[in-house]
Amino acid sequence: MFSVIMAGGSGTRFWPSSRSGKPKQFLDITGKGPMVVETCDRLAPICRDEEIILVMGENHLPRARDLFGNRKVRLVGEPVGRNTAPAIGLGAVYAGKLGCSGPVAFLPADHYIGNPVAFVDSLRLAARVAESGGIVTLGILPVRPETGYGYIRRDREVITGRDETAYRVKEFVEKPDPETARRYLAGGDYYWNAGIFVATPEIILDEIQLLLPDLYKALVRVDEAWEKPEFGRIIRESYEALEPVSFDYGIMERTRQDVVVIPCECGWSDVGSWISLYELRRGEWDGDLNLTDGDVLPIDCEKSFIAAGGERLVACLGLRNCLVVDTPEIVLVADLDRSQDIRKIVDRLRAAGRRTLL
Amino acid sequence: MFSVIMAGGSGTRFWPSSRSGKPKQFLDITGKGPMVVETCDRLAPICRDEEIILVMGENHLPRARDLFGNRKVRLVGEPVGRNTAPAIGLGAVYAGKLGCSGPVAFLPADHYIGNPVAFVDSLRLAARVAESGGIVTLGILPVRPETGYGYIRRDREVITGRDETAYRVKEFVEKPDPETARRYLAGGDYYWNAGIFVATPEIILDEIQLLLPDLYKALVRVDEAWEKPEFGRIIRESYEALEPVSFDYGIMERTRQDVVVIPCECGWSDVGSWISLYELRRGEWDGDLNLTDGDVLPIDCEKSFIAAGGERLVACLGLRNCLVVDTPEIVLVADLDRSQDIRKIVDRLRAAGRRTLL
Repeated sequence: MFSVIMAGGSGTRFWPSSRSGKPKQFLDITGKGPMVVETCDRLAPICRDEEIILVMGENHLPRARDLFGNRKVRLVGEPVGRNTAPAIGLGAVYAGKLGCSGPVAFLPADHYIGNPVAFVDSLRLAARVAESGGIVTLGILPVRPETGYGYIRRDREVITGRDETAYRVKEFVEKPDPETARRYLAGGDYYWNAGIFVATPEIILDEIQLLLPDLYKALVRVDEAWEKPEFGRIIRESYEALEPVSFDYGIMERTRQDVVVIPCECGWSDVGSWISLYELRRGEWDGDLNLTDGDVLPIDCEKSFIAAGGERLVACLGLRNCLVVDTPEIVLVADLDRSQDIRKIVDRLRAAGRRTLL
Repeated sequence: MFSVIMAGGSGTRFWPSSRSGKPKQFLDITGKGPMVVETCDRLAPICRDEEIILVMGENHLPRARDLFGNRKVRLVGEPVGRNTAPAIGLGAVYAGKLGCSGPVAFLPADHYIGNPVAFVDSLRLAARVAESGGIVTLGILPVRPETGYGYIRRDREVITGRDETAYRVKEFVEKPDPETARRYLAGGDYYWNAGIFVATPEIILDEIQLLLPDLYKALVRVDEAWEKPEFGRIIRESYEALEPVSFDYGIMERTRQDVVVIPCECGWSDVGSWISLYELRRGEWDGDLNLTDGDVLPIDCEKSFIAAGGERLVACLGLRNCLVVDTPEIVLVADLDRSQDIRKIVDRLRAAGRRTLL
């Protein structure tokens, strides 16, 4: 089975640990190695390395080559980021080039999965369903009224088994307001959309042809130039002309294909901010609910996340709900509950022309 | 006129900016240069450099020589710190060696004086009073019910003039509890004891002979060995045998000499902690009451003191009442109101054997 891992994204949400040259997917953010490598390793029960395609910004290819060394994973670079629909399309083209006609898993490089066995089981089931056509998606059972994710509303059951359940999808819905999110959670027939899809390259490209014809034309040009001398120029011209569009919005919300959701309890987190990482790692909290990395001396601190970068002592006194991240060039100190607003800092630095700190 | 500047003290209260090798008096903490140099410069209207004696830990002599370069101030090192009574005694001995028989000002090296003209005027008046004997002290007009200082209670007026007032001292009292401090403030006849005294070397040494005879014997040994080859050994042996004792406790609270206090409104602060420095520098606060030094980006912060050490950006988001001090080896993040407890961190590091960080 093939997988396409979307490793684009220049995430600023883990700034200053993530930087434009080293985004989140290349960081060892959960203590298990770089997330992109962990994502590949997690697929080992179902994909050989040569069946794994990583789509990323072309500026990150050298770093990825370093990370994977002699491993035979396939790397393909996008000249510019244009959101997930082009990345999935490009992955589908590449999988087709490699002779794949069966179901392919399309998944992000930077998610945390607490239970990889359950996750891989869900992908196996998704592939079985996708063999007979349609697009299959994993639905994460929601555990809180989250307003930061899109949701998938299920329809009637299509598979019922002891360990295997699947539903037809009624609709994909965008990020809800808090009231709606509470209703979704209470209702029981909504799942979080983790952006994980399984379908054959043919179906993916057919849907792109139907719903995103400009993208389809670009992908055809890229396909025809594959491994030719002009490939670099062609893919750059094609990508630069594209409008950014997500696969959810461009395809899933509008497709006429059969869409099936497989409920998945795999301890998923998108690890979308420092506070979500703090919560994810609750097993490592000390008795005062502090999470510390590296050379940290916390005195009378509570509920704080303090990460020393390895070069300095970080001494903390009387902090509450605080985030401290020490790196060689930058020290960040923030209210931990404000970690979603770190983008503000990055925006200010960009406006000030301080590119080396982005 | 001679002055003896007490530049001992290995203050941990400005850790991590102050370190055992570079205590507060050698730091540029108020933005006007190293405090010990500023203290000398402030005396220029009344003392030539060669009339200024600096008493300090002998391990700090090289740093002081660097700071003062060709200036003719006199430096003398104490082998170990034994509080202010030995330092004042040693300064008095040195002043006597230099032929001084008139009043000498004894003052700490690490205080801030907002109005140096008023300060020097008070010292001039103090010297005039001390010429006829006794010990004269400056009394700082209290502006809050401070519990961290000793107080001086005045008795009847001995000088009354348009710009000149002096009182006999009724008593020196130790640090009060909050209720007592409020009473002192309301009463109007108490001053803060800033540890600034004016008296002739003869009177200082007579009082030491009477009240601290062991110290007197040690000073006589040191005096006799002055400039002889065995001086280093003698002063070390003498100091090591001494009990630490403050001049306030050992002499001022028990002296039978006439003691006079001169009220002094000179914008004095002992700059005893990060928060007192923050308050001292209120003129530099931004509109959200933040005080920043160096490369700092504060977003949505209030009432915080953020000091970047010059090598890194310090980015802050959503902080309130926070102290951040970035230095090459240490980052400190603390509740600004807890800055008096920084000693706790230093104590923990000492207990952990991390001497390079002290």
